[in-house]
Formats: sequence, C-alpha cells, structure tokens
Amino acid sequence: MLIVGERINTSRKQMAPAVANLDAAAVREEAKKQVEAGAHVIDVNCGTLVEREVEVMEWLVRTVQEAVEVPLCIDTPNPKALEAGLRVHRGKALVNSITAEAGRYEAMVPLVKEYGAGVVALCISDRGMPRTVDDRLQVVDRLVERLSRDGVPLEDIYVDPLIQPLATEPDNGRIALETVARVMEGYPGIHTICGLSNISFGLPCRRLLNQSFLCMLLAAGLDGAILDPLDQALMSFLRASLVITGADPYSMEYIKAYREGKLVKT
Amino acid sequence: MLIVGERINTSRKQMAPAVANLDAAAVREEAKKQVEAGAHVIDVNCGTLVEREVEVMEWLVRTVQEAVEVPLCIDTPNPKALEAGLRVHRGKALVNSITAEAGRYEAMVPLVKEYGAGVVALCISDRGMPRTVDDRLQVVDRLVERLSRDGVPLEDIYVDPLIQPLATEPDNGRIALETVARVMEGYPGIHTICGLSNISFGLPCRRLLNQSFLCMLLAAGLDGAILDPLDQALMSFLRASLVITGADPYSMEYIKAYREGKLVKT
Repeated sequence: MLIVGERINTSRKQMAPAVANLDAAAVREEAKKQVEAGAHVIDVNCGTLVEREVEVMEWLVRTVQEAVEVPLCIDTPNPKALEAGLRVHRGKALVNSITAEAGRYEAMVPLVKEYGAGVVALCISDRGMPRTVDDRLQVVDRLVERLSRDGVPLEDIYVDPLIQPLATEPDNGRIALETVARVMEGYPGIHTICGLSNISFGLPCRRLLNQSFLCMLLAAGLDGAILDPLDQALMSFLRASLVITGADPYSMEYIKAYREGKLVKT
Repeated sequence: MLIVGERINTSRKQMAPAVANLDAAAVREEAKKQVEAGAHVIDVNCGTLVEREVEVMEWLVRTVQEAVEVPLCIDTPNPKALEAGLRVHRGKALVNSITAEAGRYEAMVPLVKEYGAGVVALCISDRGMPRTVDDRLQVVDRLVERLSRDGVPLEDIYVDPLIQPLATEPDNGRIALETVARVMEGYPGIHTICGLSNISFGLPCRRLLNQSFLCMLLAAGLDGAILDPLDQALMSFLRASLVITGADPYSMEYIKAYREGKLVKT
C-alpha cells in the first residue's frame, strides 16, 4: 500500500503562504509530520503560484528532501515545473500526472522515462472524461499500451480511476470500484491510486462517506491513496482495511499502530 | 438491504433476565427501539433457556409482534422451538438457520416450507466448516439445489458465508468477501446475510474492524446484516455505504438520516 501525503499543496489555505514565502522550516515540518504519520511519499504541488511554479517546484523538492528520506510525488501538469522538480529529486520520483491527451502525454512521458519515475495515469483522453467503466478501461488500455511501448514498465504505472461525486451521479461510486477491480485484475503488476474526497462533494457528513469509500476501494484492490495522513480516523480505517484484505498479515502493522495510540475510537 | 436487529437474544447479558422473567414491557421496548433505529426484521433468540426454549420462543414471538409491525427472525437450531415460533408468527418469518447437515436440514426445512418462511442458510455441511471459498461455494451449491427441489424459492434464501476471525487466519476477511461476491453473482435473486463481529475477535479496536468490514461486504453485494441497529456508528457506515454502492440512489435515505441526527460525526 502506497500512502501519498497530500498536505504540501498551495491550494490548501494553510500551506499557501508558507510555500509562497519559501518558508523552509514550515515546509520541512509539514513533510516530517506526514512521514511520521505513515506517508511513504510526499506530494508537492505549487500550481497556484502560476508565474513562479518552475522555480518554486525546484525549491520544494530540495527543501522537502532535506527533511525526509522518502521520495516525492511531483504534482503538476506543467512540463517545465516537472522537469525542474525531477532534475533535483533524489531517488525514484512519482509524477502526478499524465493523461491520454496527446499534448500532455507527449510533453510529460519523455521526462518520466528520462528520470525513471513512476507515473500517475488519469483516465482522461482527448475525448474528455469517460463516463462508464468500459470507457475508462479503453482509456487505460491505450495508456498502458503506449507507456509500455515508450519503455515505462507496468510496475511504475499508477492508474487513477478518477473519482467523481455521488451527488452528480449515483453510479459514480460503483464505477470507481469496478474500474479499480478490473484494472488490478487485467494488468497484473500495475497499481491503482486515487484521491478520495471528491466522492462526497455536495453531501453531508463527508468524512463518513470518504472513510466508507476508502474501505471499499481497498477491498477492490486499490494499492495507493493520496490523502492526509494526519487524518487519524481515515488512517485508522485504512489500517483496519488492510488487516481485512490480508495485506497486513497477522495484523502486525495494525497492532503496532494500536500500541502507538494511532487508532481512533469509533 | 435487510437489517435484522440482533438485540433480543438471551446470550446478551442485558436481555437475559427480561426474557427469563417474561418481562413483556422490556421485550416490547427493545423491539420498538430497534425498529425506530432502522431494523426491518427483529431476531428473537432464547437458546440459553434450554429447558424452556419452546414455550419462551412462542411467548417471544407473540410479545414482540404485539409491539411492532415487522416480521421476526426465529433464531434457533431447535425444530420444536422453531415450530412453536412459526405457529404464532404473523406474516412471513425468517428462519435462522439451516445448514447442509443432514439432520438439521431435514428437521428444519419442512417447517420453512410449511410456513412459507425465508431462511438463513449457513455454509456448513456434514463435513464441518468449509475453509476455502470454493469449499463454501460447493456447500452453497448443494444447499440451493436441495432447497429449490424442496420448493423454497431463491428469493427466500439468505446465504450466510460464515464470518471467522482474522486473528486465527488472516485470509478470513478475503474469504468472506469473495464468498459473498460469488454467491450474489452466481445465483441472481438470492440474498446474503451475516453477523459481523466475529471477524474482529481477539483484535484491538474491534469496532473499527467491524465498520470497515461492513463497508467492504456491502460493496461485495451483501444485502442483509444481523446487527445492533442502536449502534449509531455502525448504522452510519451502513447508510454511507449504501449511497456509494448505488443502493440509496440520490442519497434520499442518507440525507433523511442526516436530518434526523442519526449520522455520527467521524
């Protein structure tokens, strides 16, 4: 299970000033807290600083890697910012994200290849956002085939099924779950990853829906999640789910988290 | 989704004296609270009162049905107690439970048939408790075939995959989930049902595991659960999960529960 900590993102009110002011201490602190809480990878996103994204991304990668030993997820659709980040990154980075859109694919994948990074592949093509499970799987098929041809191994691909709100279409939960299950069955060795919170947009008690959805996605085979590792309740459900799916055999990690006081009372 | 309220059971410390003393007011109160909380069926079990089970079961069925309009789940392996309960039950009862064991099957199924009841069918045969998913499906296959031959329609069968503790075998979660999914796919129209709490036996933070497991089972297709409907957290996860699986289209029930203050903060 790959847990990507999502907190270093300038679209979060709490982080925007720290990153904009190049406050290294605040950024390092944010990275450390996430790793201590269980993140395996730290996402860095400074997309709101449009004019300065390239230089700030380079600064973010250097700054975070001074604080923690884990790889980063370089989160930008901007190939220049991606390259700036990858150039200074130590170890195997994750690139977030490519799509099957011709322009984006061609600008990003050569960098993924050059730097030997893993890559989050969103189910979006030039025809837009697919609606059904089959439409998504067609996009995945094309992406996987092309990435293989371009020398990116299956083990480096993290398919994101694109979570869309239940409030706009009641089938969106089932679609995401089925997409994850079919991708994991169809391409042994590949990974799936997603953010969760979009599912509950517009509904009350969003945390309840996000937690339930995470459990279900893990049962469907999801093996990566982009989330806030400081959300103790969500992390508790993740840890419990890994026991149930058999991914935490003999509950070693679960019991360790319990002893460290990391599991919430529910 | 069929929610069976499990609270009227003499193996629960809180209920044992009320039932043993034939305290009708206490039993009626317990039934009403469960229906108000969302139970569709009320389970009645007085198995610990071995010597008096037959007469107490008859009394329980009459007493509960004086208080609530829902059907009951007559929960006993004792054919005499079952018959006593079914004889006075109004409406379509649920029988909990039969197995593929020859003696038990032959003693119980004629009563199921005579009274037109639904039936919980446990995956147990004369060869004992099956271990693998395939072993379970073989038992289900034999049970379904025989029940059909004996005139019990598929829609009246509730297969219980038998939840066993993760602490004794890490695969027990996956086995239950896969059994539910394959039963629901393999026999369109059939139902699946189970109690949850056995999964977490021997582990810390059991509620967390039970809640996670319920979400996963619902995603796998489970359409019945025997649980404590007064457990607001568990019921909240159930309601959230039904939104995600599409079983509560446009979140009508979920939003109603929210407005009535029934969803917990998590």
